[in-house]
Amino acid sequence: MENTQFRLAARPVGMTKDSDWQVTREAVRELADGEVLVKTQYLSLDPAMRGWMNEGKSYIRPVAIGEVMRAGGLGEVIASKSARFAVGDQVAGGLGVQQYWIGAADDRSAALTKIDTRLAPATTWLNTLGMPGMTAYFGLLEVGQPKAGETVLVSGAAGAVGQTVGQVAKQLGCRVVGIAGGKDKCDFVVNELGFDACIDYKGSDVRAGLKEHCPNGVDVYFDNVGGEILDMVLTRINLKARIVVCGAISQYNNTTPVKGPANYLALLVNRARMEGMVVFDYADRYHVAVAALGKWLQEGKIKSREDVVRGIENFPQALNMLFEGKNFGKLVLQVA
Amino acid sequence: MENTQFRLAARPVGMTKDSDWQVTREAVRELADGEVLVKTQYLSLDPAMRGWMNEGKSYIRPVAIGEVMRAGGLGEVIASKSARFAVGDQVAGGLGVQQYWIGAADDRSAALTKIDTRLAPATTWLNTLGMPGMTAYFGLLEVGQPKAGETVLVSGAAGAVGQTVGQVAKQLGCRVVGIAGGKDKCDFVVNELGFDACIDYKGSDVRAGLKEHCPNGVDVYFDNVGGEILDMVLTRINLKARIVVCGAISQYNNTTPVKGPANYLALLVNRARMEGMVVFDYADRYHVAVAALGKWLQEGKIKSREDVVRGIENFPQALNMLFEGKNFGKLVLQVA
Repeated sequence: MENTQFRLAARPVGMTKDSDWQVTREAVRELADGEVLVKTQYLSLDPAMRGWMNEGKSYIRPVAIGEVMRAGGLGEVIASKSARFAVGDQVAGGLGVQQYWIGAADDRSAALTKIDTRLAPATTWLNTLGMPGMTAYFGLLEVGQPKAGETVLVSGAAGAVGQTVGQVAKQLGCRVVGIAGGKDKCDFVVNELGFDACIDYKGSDVRAGLKEHCPNGVDVYFDNVGGEILDMVLTRINLKARIVVCGAISQYNNTTPVKGPANYLALLVNRARMEGMVVFDYADRYHVAVAALGKWLQEGKIKSREDVVRGIENFPQALNMLFEGKNFGKLVLQVA
Repeated sequence: MENTQFRLAARPVGMTKDSDWQVTREAVRELADGEVLVKTQYLSLDPAMRGWMNEGKSYIRPVAIGEVMRAGGLGEVIASKSARFAVGDQVAGGLGVQQYWIGAADDRSAALTKIDTRLAPATTWLNTLGMPGMTAYFGLLEVGQPKAGETVLVSGAAGAVGQTVGQVAKQLGCRVVGIAGGKDKCDFVVNELGFDACIDYKGSDVRAGLKEHCPNGVDVYFDNVGGEILDMVLTRINLKARIVVCGAISQYNNTTPVKGPANYLALLVNRARMEGMVVFDYADRYHVAVAALGKWLQEGKIKSREDVVRGIENFPQALNMLFEGKNFGKLVLQVA
């Protein structure tokens, strides 16, 4: 049995190119005691992956040159020499960009956990019930701390994290405004996800949109994009506003220095704060978020939208879709 | 009796120039019932004054063209038709850049309060026991929230706010590192104020200084300067660090857009926050800070250093000293 793998061949400059990847094919080896073999079904493609490819100190060690690219995924246990997992178990974990994951059942970096595909479809476990959902839930509740009646603004509103941020904020009784690229995404965000409004940053004037749709200012801004939009939002924040720094997708492929928020002194004027979050800090409470989000999903109160690209061979192009805004919903790569 | 006043003649571009001011001399009018006449002794010169001269929404309305420049100060009541103040009372309040203040004893924008010059010398009431001290105390304790053993870094360390931030942090058991301009100021900060170290941003490499003097990283950064130094500090913050955005003196005279902190994504990596503060929010608890700081002053545990310039006619040049880093300690203008 052959395992196709994408390994990091070079540290990308700007957008990743084909030459940044090395495709290897190796035979799947025999299992040792305590190990399991997982056949990858779906991989999660996330903006954060671009950061993992860079050198330098961050919240997680960089992927090494020659190493299989890190990625979260879902798969099926197809062989097991561990009592923890049985053949046929559906699992989520750090499977990497490859067709098969092999390793100790209790490997800490893979952190395999069983998932229940009766509660939600498999791809939802990479979205609302996976890392994006956990990021949205804890980032919004713990860092953003929205109160009913407040205005919550979220960028990347049709994306994996943004869709759940906005829908959870609606459940909390907030006015929710999204920012997304293109009319189709904005229509989806309003009509399907139930946001109060959505500003099309590609087809309209964001500054005017903020004035129109956030007439009482912005109390919580959940930022996935950074850059110019963050700067515009800073001019609209309220007293004691909270800006959740979740990501800055507009800046991840920069070959020039990151654009810092020139209007950051709005934090002073408004006694506001800007705070970073990393989802892993909340790992011991993921089950709380899965329970809450799972219930809302089952009750039809929130929705989960994934954009599935097929074929592991399409991994490089699929990853770049994130940075071109071409995905519509949580981007997932179907491997098997 | 003639009252010399400095009125705003034009909104400055960059550093203020003589032509931005109009000097008027008007007769002091008779008191109406409920009014008092205060003879200005000292005026507080603060970086924030530069912001008050600009148009646009801020935490306080801009000074109008033709209006007497806003300034806090100390003076003596020399005539009174109010039961609240008697002739001879020493008062602090928003006296403006003028020799005499006349108005209702309960005028809200002047907010006159009696001060006790037996507790501390008059100029200390514009420094440690005045707005700079209140800013330092509440900004550090409420926003910075330092814990014993943590590293607290403060820019503008020899300035009005910085000197008290650092000394209070020492009282709390923190490692305290200052940033100041020039060897004299740094020596003063370490030898007189008791900071553990001070980095000379004019005469040494700040990046190297941060590595040397904050070997365990920075837990609290109390920022009075913004700009490049803020960006360098962001590369040295610890997990869960707190950056208190108190000011950005390096940016107040910009004629180009403010330089935003390009390294702000360090907030994400470190789950850190950056939060603005405005001292007026704590007005109902100033008495708490005055009691605490007054006690430390009397016990000799903290010091108050003022830099006194004499003569109201020197107001324009004295104000600019702040932005050239020429003041050594809290800058005060002696009017009478």
